[in-house]
Amino acid sequence: MELVQAYISRNKDRFLDELLDLLRIPSVSADPAYSESVHKTAASVAQSLKNAGAESVEICETAGYPIVYGEKIIDSSLPTILVYGHYDVQPADPIELWTNPAFEPIIKTTPIHPEGAIFARGACDDKGQMFMHVKAFEAMIKNNALPCNVKFMIEGEEEVGSVNLGVFVKNNHARLKADVILVSDTGMLANDVPSITTGLRGLSYVEVEVTGPNRDLHSGLYGGCVANPINILAKMIASLHDENNHITIPGFYDKVIELTDGERREMAKAPFSKEAYCTALDIDDVMGEAGYSTPERGSIRPTLDVNGIWGGYTGEGAKTVIASKAYAKISMRLVPDQDPIEITELFVNHFESIAPAGTRVKVTPHHGGEPAVTPIDSVGYKAASLAYEKTFGKKPIPVRSGGSIPIVAMFEKELGLKTVLMGFGLDSDAIHSPNEHFGVFNYFKGIETIPYFFKYFNELNQA
Amino acid sequence: MELVQAYISRNKDRFLDELLDLLRIPSVSADPAYSESVHKTAASVAQSLKNAGAESVEICETAGYPIVYGEKIIDSSLPTILVYGHYDVQPADPIELWTNPAFEPIIKTTPIHPEGAIFARGACDDKGQMFMHVKAFEAMIKNNALPCNVKFMIEGEEEVGSVNLGVFVKNNHARLKADVILVSDTGMLANDVPSITTGLRGLSYVEVEVTGPNRDLHSGLYGGCVANPINILAKMIASLHDENNHITIPGFYDKVIELTDGERREMAKAPFSKEAYCTALDIDDVMGEAGYSTPERGSIRPTLDVNGIWGGYTGEGAKTVIASKAYAKISMRLVPDQDPIEITELFVNHFESIAPAGTRVKVTPHHGGEPAVTPIDSVGYKAASLAYEKTFGKKPIPVRSGGSIPIVAMFEKELGLKTVLMGFGLDSDAIHSPNEHFGVFNYFKGIETIPYFFKYFNELNQA
Repeated sequence: MELVQAYISRNKDRFLDELLDLLRIPSVSADPAYSESVHKTAASVAQSLKNAGAESVEICETAGYPIVYGEKIIDSSLPTILVYGHYDVQPADPIELWTNPAFEPIIKTTPIHPEGAIFARGACDDKGQMFMHVKAFEAMIKNNALPCNVKFMIEGEEEVGSVNLGVFVKNNHARLKADVILVSDTGMLANDVPSITTGLRGLSYVEVEVTGPNRDLHSGLYGGCVANPINILAKMIASLHDENNHITIPGFYDKVIELTDGERREMAKAPFSKEAYCTALDIDDVMGEAGYSTPERGSIRPTLDVNGIWGGYTGEGAKTVIASKAYAKISMRLVPDQDPIEITELFVNHFESIAPAGTRVKVTPHHGGEPAVTPIDSVGYKAASLAYEKTFGKKPIPVRSGGSIPIVAMFEKELGLKTVLMGFGLDSDAIHSPNEHFGVFNYFKGIETIPYFFKYFNELNQA
Repeated sequence: MELVQAYISRNKDRFLDELLDLLRIPSVSADPAYSESVHKTAASVAQSLKNAGAESVEICETAGYPIVYGEKIIDSSLPTILVYGHYDVQPADPIELWTNPAFEPIIKTTPIHPEGAIFARGACDDKGQMFMHVKAFEAMIKNNALPCNVKFMIEGEEEVGSVNLGVFVKNNHARLKADVILVSDTGMLANDVPSITTGLRGLSYVEVEVTGPNRDLHSGLYGGCVANPINILAKMIASLHDENNHITIPGFYDKVIELTDGERREMAKAPFSKEAYCTALDIDDVMGEAGYSTPERGSIRPTLDVNGIWGGYTGEGAKTVIASKAYAKISMRLVPDQDPIEITELFVNHFESIAPAGTRVKVTPHHGGEPAVTPIDSVGYKAASLAYEKTFGKKPIPVRSGGSIPIVAMFEKELGLKTVLMGFGLDSDAIHSPNEHFGVFNYFKGIETIPYFFKYFNELNQA
């Protein structure tokens, strides 16, 4: 292991340059305009795997963007780790809020990242974190120190709901046979407070359209006489939360598993400062469901948020128009045992039922995903915990996260495998936002920690 | 007058072609990108006035777009009619809903316009209606039949609140001295139900911005923990109307003059079919303030409508983001004696007061305008009524309109003059909407009717 770590130390500059090159390809999966770049990124990832020493590397075509597969089987009697990651990224807009172009990475220091952070779309989510595995693998291979088998499955549609991954997994049970799935697409509490995500929220995402009159109208002549789709949409959205910020969709909470008081007390031990939280976001107070703390609201409770809204005249100046249509994108984060398909149905039925006379409503479901929990007594979790303890010098805290990686539940269903979420990002890394970044410290810490996971996972399996 | 009408008949093709040329210049005053075209339109209007026989024609520069002035003084002892109109137009968007390009006028028939209608932005509002006056003037001049003095004041900022017209009027009291102001920028009930607008609503227009966290956030990590500016904006907008669709801004109705039961009975005599209204708009019901009929809601009652809303991710697909900011454009139509400045203040104070902890609100007032009422016993109204009766064969109905022409109240204050609103458009002409049009019948009916107004206004003044 000394050789591996020394190799990593020696090659830091190159490891960083290679990541910057990868970040320069704008692999925005949500926008068809970037299609060529997304394919180019897949090819680049495949080449990186080959260069690192992977075998059977293949760009597996799907109905959408391809999945990059590669493996290194050293001994079929040894355990196999299946590494999952994604090479696609979120759209960069609003681009005007970036301080550097989103696909021209720069490194600069921040108060949280005194050693510098890489600013670029995808730096943390997930190119940077995915690439840590490629480099850690390279370090182990080049030093003849790979302790077990490894398989890579890197997809290009995570940011649009992994629409074709399920089919791929279903059709490749044998090829994907493994003992654990390892993913770095989450975060830690702080650079000096390592943590491992043990729970993920599910997701239901819908787009709604409210139609009033059949054409845009002059608000002077028709104002006050007809249902204005924007006002109605606002009213319908407002009605989705009550005065305690409970979600009002009938049946929404029916399957939510409430944590015991003991579990909540355990959770409350993770450090959290409301003052620091508010200061970082420049807000004077938090807001959320009555009866729960902010960390609880963001992890063990389901939520409903409007992610986008539009309608009418949004240009410069004033236009006195009543729009014919108004739109919103709405997502719900789900917790065990809420089922995304069932929740989407509840939403559609409720939203249609509250549309007033004079309007029509159309709800289009986008992707969804099931919530998931990783048990902390599994071999995978234990190996990860030991690995973090080794490189950070302290035992990591298990935390439930508010985010969603819907494929974790799918992996369990299809492959019968638990997923270990070894994330090295920070909440402040602004993923999905302008100025996304990833600490240089975090990038290398990930590359250093991953080989220890391989080592301990192998050892614990042998024991 | 026979000569005048014969001249109009003879020149119909040319009158139409000249209007189409004027409509081809995209004079969108709200968007700085069209600045050159707006100036070009002013020059075109000035040239048309000169060609028609106007004197002292001048393109009067202002701090914004110029005002075109021209006059023909035949005898200072005769009455003077001041014609007002505007050569600027609303933005054309959403452009994808136009069946022809907005600035490439075409003529086609519709069920309401079997003789054809001119489809183009500004066809009705107000290039078409303004140009009727230029052509009617030409017909009177060329046949030595102008019965009294006339002055033209055609501005280029009506669609953005006539911001510089007030200054111009204040500085030109002597030049603008007249006996009545004549404006064609309103509509009639139907081509076989002539009507004259006797009341206009005022306007308060504001843009609101709700800020939550200082940057866009990942909805998985922060959803449910912080105030989401879009959800909050929706809630704030929803709260502006109560369950009876009364506006909840404290003090909003304090100065509203309620009509007497007699006045409301008189109003109710104007033909109105809710069925036809709903069918035309493809809605299953109307919506509005409890206790008032649809025509009342659209004319004698103040209203509040969102004209535009935007925030977050509005592109293709799904993005799980909590936006840092959300925006809306909101307009309020006002009735006598509501004061737009006072109402705007009430709105700002109320909107700021309802912003919850965790958010900040900024309200930017756009333009406003006072409501106005034209008495039907004035010489101007009587002359207009006689003129319509002559050309339509039936007496026009006086109606209160829901629209706003804020400068009408300003004219009365500054110049002490009442305005006669001789409009020839129809509600169905889709002004401010895609596929705005103006009936060919209406265009020529306007040109034919205006000379009669001149005749009767002169005669009634002599009497």
